[in-house]
Amino acid sequence: MLGKMMYRPLTISSLIEHAGRYHGSTTVTSVETSGEVVHSNWGEVERNARKLSAALARLGLETGDRAATIAWNNRRHLEIYFGVAGGGFVCHTINPRLFPEQLIYIINHADDKVLFIDATFVPAVAKLREHLPNLQHVVLMGPRDEAAAEQIEGLLFYDELVAAEDDSCVWPEIDENLPSSLCYTSGTTGHPKGVQYTHRTNVLHSLGGNQPDGKGLAARDTVMAVVPMFHANAWGVPYIAAAVGCKMVLPGPHLDGVSLANLIDSEQVTIALGVPTIWMGLLQGLAETGSNAETLKRTIVGGSALPTVMIPTFRDKYGVELIHAWGMTETSPLGTLNQLLQKHDDLSEAEKGAIREGQGRPPYGVELRIVDDEGTLLPEDGETQGNLQIRGHWIIDTYFKADSTALTDDGWFDTGDVATINADGYMIIRDRSKDIIKSGGEWISTVELEDIAIAHPKIANAAAIAARHPKWDERPIVIAVLAEGEALSEAELLDSYKGKVASWQIPDKVIFVSDLPLGGTGKVLKNKLRDQFGDALLEA
Amino acid sequence: MLGKMMYRPLTISSLIEHAGRYHGSTTVTSVETSGEVVHSNWGEVERNARKLSAALARLGLETGDRAATIAWNNRRHLEIYFGVAGGGFVCHTINPRLFPEQLIYIINHADDKVLFIDATFVPAVAKLREHLPNLQHVVLMGPRDEAAAEQIEGLLFYDELVAAEDDSCVWPEIDENLPSSLCYTSGTTGHPKGVQYTHRTNVLHSLGGNQPDGKGLAARDTVMAVVPMFHANAWGVPYIAAAVGCKMVLPGPHLDGVSLANLIDSEQVTIALGVPTIWMGLLQGLAETGSNAETLKRTIVGGSALPTVMIPTFRDKYGVELIHAWGMTETSPLGTLNQLLQKHDDLSEAEKGAIREGQGRPPYGVELRIVDDEGTLLPEDGETQGNLQIRGHWIIDTYFKADSTALTDDGWFDTGDVATINADGYMIIRDRSKDIIKSGGEWISTVELEDIAIAHPKIANAAAIAARHPKWDERPIVIAVLAEGEALSEAELLDSYKGKVASWQIPDKVIFVSDLPLGGTGKVLKNKLRDQFGDALLEA
Repeated sequence: MLGKMMYRPLTISSLIEHAGRYHGSTTVTSVETSGEVVHSNWGEVERNARKLSAALARLGLETGDRAATIAWNNRRHLEIYFGVAGGGFVCHTINPRLFPEQLIYIINHADDKVLFIDATFVPAVAKLREHLPNLQHVVLMGPRDEAAAEQIEGLLFYDELVAAEDDSCVWPEIDENLPSSLCYTSGTTGHPKGVQYTHRTNVLHSLGGNQPDGKGLAARDTVMAVVPMFHANAWGVPYIAAAVGCKMVLPGPHLDGVSLANLIDSEQVTIALGVPTIWMGLLQGLAETGSNAETLKRTIVGGSALPTVMIPTFRDKYGVELIHAWGMTETSPLGTLNQLLQKHDDLSEAEKGAIREGQGRPPYGVELRIVDDEGTLLPEDGETQGNLQIRGHWIIDTYFKADSTALTDDGWFDTGDVATINADGYMIIRDRSKDIIKSGGEWISTVELEDIAIAHPKIANAAAIAARHPKWDERPIVIAVLAEGEALSEAELLDSYKGKVASWQIPDKVIFVSDLPLGGTGKVLKNKLRDQFGDALLEA
Repeated sequence: MLGKMMYRPLTISSLIEHAGRYHGSTTVTSVETSGEVVHSNWGEVERNARKLSAALARLGLETGDRAATIAWNNRRHLEIYFGVAGGGFVCHTINPRLFPEQLIYIINHADDKVLFIDATFVPAVAKLREHLPNLQHVVLMGPRDEAAAEQIEGLLFYDELVAAEDDSCVWPEIDENLPSSLCYTSGTTGHPKGVQYTHRTNVLHSLGGNQPDGKGLAARDTVMAVVPMFHANAWGVPYIAAAVGCKMVLPGPHLDGVSLANLIDSEQVTIALGVPTIWMGLLQGLAETGSNAETLKRTIVGGSALPTVMIPTFRDKYGVELIHAWGMTETSPLGTLNQLLQKHDDLSEAEKGAIREGQGRPPYGVELRIVDDEGTLLPEDGETQGNLQIRGHWIIDTYFKADSTALTDDGWFDTGDVATINADGYMIIRDRSKDIIKSGGEWISTVELEDIAIAHPKIANAAAIAARHPKWDERPIVIAVLAEGEALSEAELLDSYKGKVASWQIPDKVIFVSDLPLGGTGKVLKNKLRDQFGDALLEA
């Protein structure tokens, strides 16, 4: 009964083999940790990755074993992506900005056998080393370095490992449903949780995520992945770049606007990907350097909400199209991407702009829905807010080493976000579901309330949270930090909400504080604020 | 050991579900067999396809059973594509231009249970009906038609079948490795052979074939599939159009240049796909109608070699980019597509044009190689000619109902073509391997020799074939048909080869004939010519 077509597994090694074979001379530019700019190519990346896979087997790794990285975006990290996964091992990318205790937890929980590190992280890893009993090898991503060797006992050197293998090794055959890579989410509560991608999900994410309405990379592009390679596989860009054979630019450790502006010009970058703060920095960098970012055509922006002014600024000043996207570690990450439809052709620029501010629509391969707290399906009318759930070819089922699935009974992943979806599938994130304020049956977005507070010139930072309320269950209050040297009354701040939100959405109270509690990745810890101020409306 | 991501099968129904859900209001334009232009949309196509799948189950079809079509490109054919495959049955698309005995062979060999036909084919099918003992139902693709009902006993009507189902039916769950569709190749010798695609191969072909360097369809495009839906799944365009949710134009039976030019303008087509003769006709049609094909940006051309003058003509006169592609029924069909690389940016227009004339390079998902007659790998230097072999995610393994694989011992499919491949993977088809002339160890392309003869103003048609030779094994001879009212000597025709090919490639003889033997799809039957004239050089 089964069909009679060839069965070829969807593997990470097949991606890099394609790049090596058909795009071997295409440049991969790497800014090394030293700042040096090195030009490699897909042929060399493929060769080194293949040698690395053999070296890891020689070190004793077995299929499915984890090899981790704490590293910037550079050519060796790219080779590790393909060499580890292509060899049948699991490439575990670690966020270096985590607290030491989180790093220790993650490395031990993942049971990493090998840890690859950039020179930057030698001192930090030297301090952690004694807490990592199962870790067998630490490998410095570079040539032999005696000073580093003195800090970490038994330190190995990447260039030596690769040089010790000859070019005759071949990629092993791998089941497409085997794990290829692992990435931990840094939640604001509890231990980090690991998402273990498979070869199949990564390849499908690459093909499904690089349609013309997706990332849209072609062989003639030069793509710069500013999004870190420890952040959900750099949004899949390394895999996609290999599949299409485009030039790739890896910007290393310096992601300030001036460095990026210079790199865009020197490497003729046509498309770049990263979080909003990167592009805010780039705007400054372009102004400082006087660059016009001549070659840059598009940037894809995700990771957090996009400041609305950025889209017209980039478009009008630099001819760069900003494309808003949304995803999570659990979704590989592409969930939605904002490209217009033919029916939008006749809209005004302002109307198109309003659509572009949202997170966009799902590509083939992903389905979205919104439900209420009882799991009842809510209408996709662009108005109704609900818990956003997702299903598809590259979505998580079960966290790494978890005993039970992360899915609902009917097989959907609850994102923890509250969103609206319209009839064409355009989705807008309104809040995190644990943050949103449920006031008398209506849901009030804390994100919207914070935006208004932060826009006030006398406010440096602000968080809106739910405070318990005897009549309405919850009501919004604002925790605000004044800008340096400024003074502002509660009434003055609340005044600024008038006309911007419905009157019943205006916060009941403002509490001024000197600073807000931040987590390892810089997010405001609203749970801490709720612990501290959640009863503020009851105490009167 | 297996990964912990969701597993969602890659099915045809998932493509049309996506289109129905997220692009339900996007237009599908259909030119009916009557000539009427009807505007449907993806929502309606999905709904009708789903109802059709329920209707087929009600007619008694079981998973894997074949339902065939003899039909033009129109909306009902599109619904059948998705309804049959989505229901777990196999959509068998039949070329109406085959001889009656071939149609009978194919329908019986496929064991088709249902046959959907357009009104055009009622008389032909009425004549065949008695020779199709296993066929249970013939369905006219339209509303009830008493005149047709009189010609075919028990004739059913598509619109009635669909109307009888209600909208509450759902798509069944399907294993992605089950067959979804079936297409027979019309070789020049022996019985036609069936290629049975699976859900997985069709979905991977859609995703892999619609990268920006592939067909490149986006939601804002309007795609016109001129390539028939009975020709290798219309090159996958129906599936891709559903996956990206673009507007689709199905041009019905009239594919002359004027009809297509008018349709391009009225439906604002941005990209179209078809064989070279279609575009030759379109050039005439544009000239006749005075249209500039204003909206048309790209056409993808395959199925046979592209006359070189067409690329600059379309570009310079109409701003339309012609993209050359190559594939076969056995390859789903995408094998190569011609998009330039970044390294070509600095080439002159003439140099770029020369690259564009070839068949292009393989996308991720396809690998090519050339081998000699002993199976030894040949260099990919752009010069060496060899038997072209292919491997990948959407390539055949075994013909339908065949006892043994169609592959080489090491798992490659031999295309039957002779080709060169260069270091970047750019492939050029030089000849069919059974046609190429092997003269003293060198391979001489018959295609090249024919092109030169046909370019002679006094020649209407010509075929080059191998004739046996006592010293060189084989030598080229030309079988030529004079243009009406013309006279030409053998020496005059052979003179025209001088300076165009190496002297040892010039044919040894010209034989003038009144016509060339043609097969069912219009191809010259060179095997017949070889039978007749293969000893022409021995008889002297």
